[in-house]
Amino acid sequence: MGIKFGTDEYFMNEAYKQAVLALEQNEVPVGAVVVANQKIIARAHNQTETLTDATAHAEILALTSAFNYLGAKYLTDCTLYVTLEPCTMCAGALYWAQLGKVVIGAPDKKRGYSRLITGQEKVLHPKTQLVQGVLEEKCSSIVTQFFKQLRG
Amino acid sequence: MGIKFGTDEYFMNEAYKQAVLALEQNEVPVGAVVVANQKIIARAHNQTETLTDATAHAEILALTSAFNYLGAKYLTDCTLYVTLEPCTMCAGALYWAQLGKVVIGAPDKKRGYSRLITGQEKVLHPKTQLVQGVLEEKCSSIVTQFFKQLRG
Repeated sequence: MGIKFGTDEYFMNEAYKQAVLALEQNEVPVGAVVVANQKIIARAHNQTETLTDATAHAEILALTSAFNYLGAKYLTDCTLYVTLEPCTMCAGALYWAQLGKVVIGAPDKKRGYSRLITGQEKVLHPKTQLVQGVLEEKCSSIVTQFFKQLRG
Repeated sequence: MGIKFGTDEYFMNEAYKQAVLALEQNEVPVGAVVVANQKIIARAHNQTETLTDATAHAEILALTSAFNYLGAKYLTDCTLYVTLEPCTMCAGALYWAQLGKVVIGAPDKKRGYSRLITGQEKVLHPKTQLVQGVLEEKCSSIVTQFFKQLRG
């Protein structure tokens, strides 16, 4: 049974394909896509090792790509799909981008931004709709397997 | 009276010169430099308007430039000087970069990362030494003047 086009599962699966590309390059397997009007306008995966740049996370690369594509300062009409909960840096970038919606695959209890929420201040933009747990199991297991192999 | 070479004030003044360059381009005037062994290896200023990229903050650009220069994943032997307290995104980037030392000019009570500290979790890397308030008045007033003119 396929995943129906246009659903959150569909676009998350496209982000997952980016995570697989990262895995093939021995990068921490995280992928992201940015969608506007049901169209993917940016795809990216983690490239911190390839670029020797600790800021080259999937979300940052996808955002910069989307900004370039749209020529826009804000991504208020866009949705970002990312396989793993963004870190503090990426969540901060999502704030500035003012995404309309952010969809997260698996939680990241160690480095995810949500551990920083104080209750008074939120990291994401107040206008950003947040959806979590889409294709959570596969998005989580690709990361778990990567670190298991790395340490094994 | 000049500022003595090699001091925190000296390098912060170099970051301030970057903030002036940003101001001349109608960018929010924030500047940063990265120093290794008393040598400036990266200089950058905020370019969010010029690049139409909300992630193009001075710190992110300076870090990427320093990574490229050193070919290193971490900047443990480097100091980053930035005229304004980093936002959440930039503080998250500083975490990943594992800076040896971060020197901040003026606080940013509105968007600075420190408002997110919960008491249990810190945003910067635990190994990063933090110095604040270097050339605070001039680093602060250039930003205040910019926003005053923007709104006036």
